[in-house]
Amino acid sequence: MIEETVKRYRAYLGKLRAYRHAMGLMNYDMNTIMPKGAGPIVGETFGVLSEAVYDMYTSPETEAMQREILAHRDEVDPILVRTAELATEERARIACIPKDEYVQYTIDQTTADQVWHEAKLKSDFPMFLPHLEKLIAAKKRFARYYRPDAPVYGTMLDEYEKGLCTETLDRFFKTVRDRLVPVIAKIKEQPDVSFLHRYYPIAEQRIFSDYLMDVLGLDRNHCIIGETEHPFTTEFTKYDVRITTHYHEDMVEASMYSVIHEGGHATYERNIADEIAKTPLGRGVSMSVHEGQSRFFENIIGRSEPFIEAIFPKMQEIFPAQLKDVTAHDFYVAVNKAEPSLIRTEADELTYPLHVMIRYELEKRLFDGDLEAKDLPKEWNRMYKEYLGIDVPDDRRGVLQDSHWASGLFGYFPSYALGSAFGAQLIKRMEREFDVWSSVRAGDLKPIVAWLTEHIYRFGSIKEPTQLMEEAFGAPFDPTYYTDYLTAKFTKLYHLN
Amino acid sequence: MIEETVKRYRAYLGKLRAYRHAMGLMNYDMNTIMPKGAGPIVGETFGVLSEAVYDMYTSPETEAMQREILAHRDEVDPILVRTAELATEERARIACIPKDEYVQYTIDQTTADQVWHEAKLKSDFPMFLPHLEKLIAAKKRFARYYRPDAPVYGTMLDEYEKGLCTETLDRFFKTVRDRLVPVIAKIKEQPDVSFLHRYYPIAEQRIFSDYLMDVLGLDRNHCIIGETEHPFTTEFTKYDVRITTHYHEDMVEASMYSVIHEGGHATYERNIADEIAKTPLGRGVSMSVHEGQSRFFENIIGRSEPFIEAIFPKMQEIFPAQLKDVTAHDFYVAVNKAEPSLIRTEADELTYPLHVMIRYELEKRLFDGDLEAKDLPKEWNRMYKEYLGIDVPDDRRGVLQDSHWASGLFGYFPSYALGSAFGAQLIKRMEREFDVWSSVRAGDLKPIVAWLTEHIYRFGSIKEPTQLMEEAFGAPFDPTYYTDYLTAKFTKLYHLN
Repeated sequence: MIEETVKRYRAYLGKLRAYRHAMGLMNYDMNTIMPKGAGPIVGETFGVLSEAVYDMYTSPETEAMQREILAHRDEVDPILVRTAELATEERARIACIPKDEYVQYTIDQTTADQVWHEAKLKSDFPMFLPHLEKLIAAKKRFARYYRPDAPVYGTMLDEYEKGLCTETLDRFFKTVRDRLVPVIAKIKEQPDVSFLHRYYPIAEQRIFSDYLMDVLGLDRNHCIIGETEHPFTTEFTKYDVRITTHYHEDMVEASMYSVIHEGGHATYERNIADEIAKTPLGRGVSMSVHEGQSRFFENIIGRSEPFIEAIFPKMQEIFPAQLKDVTAHDFYVAVNKAEPSLIRTEADELTYPLHVMIRYELEKRLFDGDLEAKDLPKEWNRMYKEYLGIDVPDDRRGVLQDSHWASGLFGYFPSYALGSAFGAQLIKRMEREFDVWSSVRAGDLKPIVAWLTEHIYRFGSIKEPTQLMEEAFGAPFDPTYYTDYLTAKFTKLYHLN
Repeated sequence: MIEETVKRYRAYLGKLRAYRHAMGLMNYDMNTIMPKGAGPIVGETFGVLSEAVYDMYTSPETEAMQREILAHRDEVDPILVRTAELATEERARIACIPKDEYVQYTIDQTTADQVWHEAKLKSDFPMFLPHLEKLIAAKKRFARYYRPDAPVYGTMLDEYEKGLCTETLDRFFKTVRDRLVPVIAKIKEQPDVSFLHRYYPIAEQRIFSDYLMDVLGLDRNHCIIGETEHPFTTEFTKYDVRITTHYHEDMVEASMYSVIHEGGHATYERNIADEIAKTPLGRGVSMSVHEGQSRFFENIIGRSEPFIEAIFPKMQEIFPAQLKDVTAHDFYVAVNKAEPSLIRTEADELTYPLHVMIRYELEKRLFDGDLEAKDLPKEWNRMYKEYLGIDVPDDRRGVLQDSHWASGLFGYFPSYALGSAFGAQLIKRMEREFDVWSSVRAGDLKPIVAWLTEHIYRFGSIKEPTQLMEEAFGAPFDPTYYTDYLTAKFTKLYHLN
């Protein structure tokens, strides 16, 4: 009896994977090469496929299978049990949404994303506003269907990061603000970074990207690199992972750190255990754990002096004219230049969490406070002035800069800062266990990837994120690792003592 | 009552379109950028989606809706009636195939295509053979399920080209052979084409492609151009059409004519009437009509002297060093160099139909004669010697050169030659109605596209292909237009009289 159910459940999971694959590919295509005029058609296709997924997800047959598997948990492959557990939670979240609203939201989100691209180009927030309002209204409704009595934003945070709540984040961002704002304030003299802005032809930058992917150990047979305005990573299974970057001829470090960042996401996915690769557990467990990996490789490793020392000879080989009068140390100092700036994705490691904090505060007020979407630009600009001391010249470089809200990703931003903080605690644990920096200095990231695979990657979504990270840290999460790390690094870099 | 059915049928068609869109995109991705290691996963996803399509297509509900619409044909939108008619035919073709065989075939075909890419690279026919045999066996079974008593190959031809049979094609290829082989034999002295093989950087060739797409009037908002080993066109609706090309730095004409050829396909799709665009009728009606358009633009227009005269100044602007000592007439003569060669897609206009004839003869024997797949290379090489007088050095440039068989497209090739022949009869009709060549000489293809839209494109798949083309010709199809056109063109080019 249970064997029969297991067999049917596996077939169901295979089907679900296929639909997600198709929708994922469509989304990837939309964000890479799809001709713009095809937008409405893609929206309709998304509507049809998401309806099919909704039906599969919420059908009584699915519910019955999952209930039976959970009732016989001792007789069933633990991977299926965990899958059924998670799916039961997720079904509860989805099944409370009326189907027509669910499907309409998918379509609206596709449209909002397309409008945002254009609105950003034109720096036209009012153009984007009605679409944003529609998404916010839907997200509020969905959260209330699921947990009628809970604060809306908390419900949304929990969706990306189980157990995460505003209390935790308020504390976290307070620590960040209290400890880092004084460090930022002390910085006065800036290093010369002019050599980063010499002419770096895109053809050579592509060669450099290939080299970086090799350094990260990314197998091109399963991981491709493309080019988009906004770099991102997507995966349909660990066997098909795709990262993108964006080249600027006068900013060699922009694509360099996009490749390392997205490559960090890809490294996580590529090292999930084969046994779970094709199941719903075969993906990174949460946004913060995922961003933790990408920002770990980008900053803790990629912006470390040993790493720059390791790759600099190759860089000089690829860009001989541009870097002939530059040392590895000059380059290390330059890519760590810390200064309040407008764009989150281009922010330095030190000021970065303040960008995230601003988004967090705005989202909190948007969903559980009295902030209206139409007032976002004004509030955005006010907070950038208050916390980063800078004036936002236009919405393109302000409230319209990120794609997240256009994709309905509210409550996602905090994971960037949390993830950054994870890395600082992880590296301390690694340093106690093996000689991290000798490997990095030799350009060999294999021991690091092996350690992360052992403690994090291979588990995919088997464990809860909190448990996974506590086991990896060997202790509860402590954000002071992060603030200490940043304080020490930038105190030394800027001779602040 | 019927209104209710119509409404449900429209919803069904929307759903079907969405699945075809998803599968089409997946196929496009597989042929463009998908990392190779993702192959097996894509096969599984195809399996799931094709099963869903099979179920939709063959369900009793679908059959009932279609029967009811046909029973009330006078009360229903004629577009829906025609859709139901065609779907009824197609359902008959599919529903006779057991579902597991149908799904397995989709998976096998995906695999065969992937193996073929590698086998071609390695010139390894035995590697490809078992996959080819599997597809052939399945296609034979499918044809027999559908028409147990008919010759298999005839059933397959009819799938791509309704009403087409081996008698028609035998007659057609006999005309081609009898009339063209003597012309080919007369050619002795060849023009100087060395300037085609100078160094043409890919960056400049890309600019040239953009220009050619403008000349064809292709709106980039709905039609993109990509790069693949084998150029092709795909479309998800007329609003999302994608062509690809392949650049060779030492063959400027290779990509040039790929762009014009694929651009011809795209022009057809882009000019289908908006009213049927999102229905199953919103696509080119048959393979030969489609290839007729691509080869019309490639050869009848693209390899005409007036067209070369029109675009040559722009070419000299893009490639000043390469073409400074070349005249438009030199270029015209060079791109029409006729000479037996190995590769169909690179063959000149005159010898081209013999390449197709060889494939036709082999397919006929493979499905209704005693030729076995394992003997294909030997027979292929023998026929290339017999009809084109050349030795095939390896299977990469022989039997493995085309992707069609690896995609299960047997019975498809004849449409290339038929399509080429259509163009010669069409241009005669156009010449009687307006001054085609003055427009072409002015670089203005709009009147031609308008004429073709009026007579062919806008109808999509509303009319049967034979009826459509007869109405466009204003007469029954007559292949001697084609042989006369080629004889006249090459007699003049090579001074054969």
